[in-house]
Amino acid sequence: MSNLKTLQAQFEEYKSRGLTLNMERGQPSDSNFDLSLPILSAVNETNYITDSGVDIRNYPGGVLGLREAREMFCEQLNVSADEVMLGNNSSLELMSRFLTWALLNGVKGSASGWVSQSPKLIVAVPGYDRHFLLAKALGFELVTVDMTPSGPDMDAVEALVKQDASIKGIYFVPTYSNPTGDTLSEAFARRLITIDAAAADFTIFADDAYSVHHLEDNPSPAPNLLAIAKETGHAERVILFGSTSKVTFASGGIGLAGMSTDNIGYWSRAMSAQTIGPNKAEQWRHVLFLRNYPGGIGGLMRAHAAILKPKFDRVQEVLNRELGNLDLATWTQPRGGYFVSLDTNRPVASRVVELAKQAGLALTPTGATYPDGIDPDNKNIRLAPTRPPIEEIEPAMEIVACCIKLASAEADAAGN
Amino acid sequence: MSNLKTLQAQFEEYKSRGLTLNMERGQPSDSNFDLSLPILSAVNETNYITDSGVDIRNYPGGVLGLREAREMFCEQLNVSADEVMLGNNSSLELMSRFLTWALLNGVKGSASGWVSQSPKLIVAVPGYDRHFLLAKALGFELVTVDMTPSGPDMDAVEALVKQDASIKGIYFVPTYSNPTGDTLSEAFARRLITIDAAAADFTIFADDAYSVHHLEDNPSPAPNLLAIAKETGHAERVILFGSTSKVTFASGGIGLAGMSTDNIGYWSRAMSAQTIGPNKAEQWRHVLFLRNYPGGIGGLMRAHAAILKPKFDRVQEVLNRELGNLDLATWTQPRGGYFVSLDTNRPVASRVVELAKQAGLALTPTGATYPDGIDPDNKNIRLAPTRPPIEEIEPAMEIVACCIKLASAEADAAGN
Repeated sequence: MSNLKTLQAQFEEYKSRGLTLNMERGQPSDSNFDLSLPILSAVNETNYITDSGVDIRNYPGGVLGLREAREMFCEQLNVSADEVMLGNNSSLELMSRFLTWALLNGVKGSASGWVSQSPKLIVAVPGYDRHFLLAKALGFELVTVDMTPSGPDMDAVEALVKQDASIKGIYFVPTYSNPTGDTLSEAFARRLITIDAAAADFTIFADDAYSVHHLEDNPSPAPNLLAIAKETGHAERVILFGSTSKVTFASGGIGLAGMSTDNIGYWSRAMSAQTIGPNKAEQWRHVLFLRNYPGGIGGLMRAHAAILKPKFDRVQEVLNRELGNLDLATWTQPRGGYFVSLDTNRPVASRVVELAKQAGLALTPTGATYPDGIDPDNKNIRLAPTRPPIEEIEPAMEIVACCIKLASAEADAAGN
Repeated sequence: MSNLKTLQAQFEEYKSRGLTLNMERGQPSDSNFDLSLPILSAVNETNYITDSGVDIRNYPGGVLGLREAREMFCEQLNVSADEVMLGNNSSLELMSRFLTWALLNGVKGSASGWVSQSPKLIVAVPGYDRHFLLAKALGFELVTVDMTPSGPDMDAVEALVKQDASIKGIYFVPTYSNPTGDTLSEAFARRLITIDAAAADFTIFADDAYSVHHLEDNPSPAPNLLAIAKETGHAERVILFGSTSKVTFASGGIGLAGMSTDNIGYWSRAMSAQTIGPNKAEQWRHVLFLRNYPGGIGGLMRAHAAILKPKFDRVQEVLNRELGNLDLATWTQPRGGYFVSLDTNRPVASRVVELAKQAGLALTPTGATYPDGIDPDNKNIRLAPTRPPIEEIEPAMEIVACCIKLASAEADAAGN
């Protein structure tokens, strides 16, 4: 029996199991959410006045968020309490606020809004589908550069930014990037922050979604971007984003934006026109819950890692065992974040996803990690091992491996 | 002693009392907030899965909000559950989302975004300062028409909208308008909805902030705008907004937007690009709390009215007693909402506010009810009796009356 026929038989055997597995989205598991259940009753009829005397039920309190919450969450973005602004549920909300305002009125120091300047943003690929969707929906043209193990390809970024004044910014994930898990290096961070940009208001929109989402005991997160920006005289160039979506609850949390205090002044005026302020009850709930959690946010993130690390280990084990000696795929070994990024050596990613679906495993649609959903090399597959229970990771990854082998053999047989 | 000297002496006597009173902002009182205290513990470690099986902790659930919450809050905007979209804290957030998207991409059916068309919005004056601030900050030019007892002056609106294609919409409060308390009449509603607009995408942004905030037992809210729009073939023209800010908590609630199901389709796509979705924990908290409240939202609003109505009555009593027989001011007698609007007969509003401040009473800054903070006639004073305890209303209103008398006498003495 040929290799192809052997693989087809193996694939049929997987199909016959009638499994229903899902590694499609980067969601926490129920066990992760259970860690934060006490947050639901952290605020009650007796403790709705904050330490600084703000009644969380009434309007006043400010567009930046409660002081106690800013003090608690500033560390997550490596900034001071005066350098952080809080928003409602999810960082995407804050990012869309900042991008829409930049289009209509510009960032601090802009001569005008960007919308009339055919604005472009640089994004790194493979990257996060919601970044691409948001920026395109608002009217930005996207220019792609490759994600490297040290962050967005800085040679490419420099070449673009130096010569094109319509490139208004870069929009990327500095720590444990989605999906590759790559983290910006100190050298790349300095090159990016000090870049000689044709656009005077070139802005670094850094979605630090996984800044505290380490899988290892000795984490090595991205360098402190705002500190470098201040040190090099580019304080206004960097805006950081984050959230509690994968700290507490994914759909009942707090968004964060970190920036220089001058930028805080500019953006708080922008936000004051558009909102009364974010939900203070939710902020206070987070403060009271995390104050009581052993070790605070760091302790909670270690508890998350204890659940997530074995799943990531299982992914690596199966990939090494099944594909380690074959010329079929390469994959990342992230030290944090929510994803493993796999590239097939042959242009068969979409076929792998299709085959996996037939075998009962949902994977992220091919192309989702590229703007407009088009992976030019048809090679990238985003693996999301966080949501399924640990016992489903091995069977799911065995299907992935089987489908990569089969799709590659099909391609070889077809002479591709 | 002259009338002026008598009034000056009376004013000095008020000053000597050293009072600290505030009728500046439209905030609920602590007693109003106390009604909703059980909401803080409505969701706990045992009931975080909704009736329809959504885990409020995870991402999925949709950009429109939880089904159970849409079913509960649709009535507040007089629409069906399929015609309502939920947002995070405060309606201002949703309104700014809609206006920014309209500027960048247009409303449903627009040929393009409005930003390149020198867009204008009609606002009624006196009106709500945050509407003016938001629209101007985003780049709209504001065109004012007078608020009348039947709503925005429709003769003026028709004249403007028929001849100027850059007028893209009207932005106003249909029920118990801020600050006059006036409510849109059926006749005006029909004229507005069926208006022959030069702009094909003319849109009615109706901030129905006080739709259930009645002070009387036999309320007469604005007519059903979406029903009239659908009946007359203008279903896409009306977008309604509301919130729970003055139902439960002002800083931990839910925003609402009501519209045709076709518009829901358009705007849910717009929102899907910009957010994961609004806070589901807060929605579920509201559903569980209001389900258990006797009489539901209606019952809660009657309990609010029982606290607020005596305050509004006291305002009318003092104004009638002190100013009823004098040619000094006129004022509204709202049947709901949060404000009483007073016009001085002489151009002395700013002087009244200044004098009141000297006597220890904070009033809304003069001009706040007009775009750019400029009241052309210097006559309008917004009185906000909801926040102070009932016992402070009479002394506060006596200061208002004294200051109106004194400022008017000063003006007469100066020959104004």
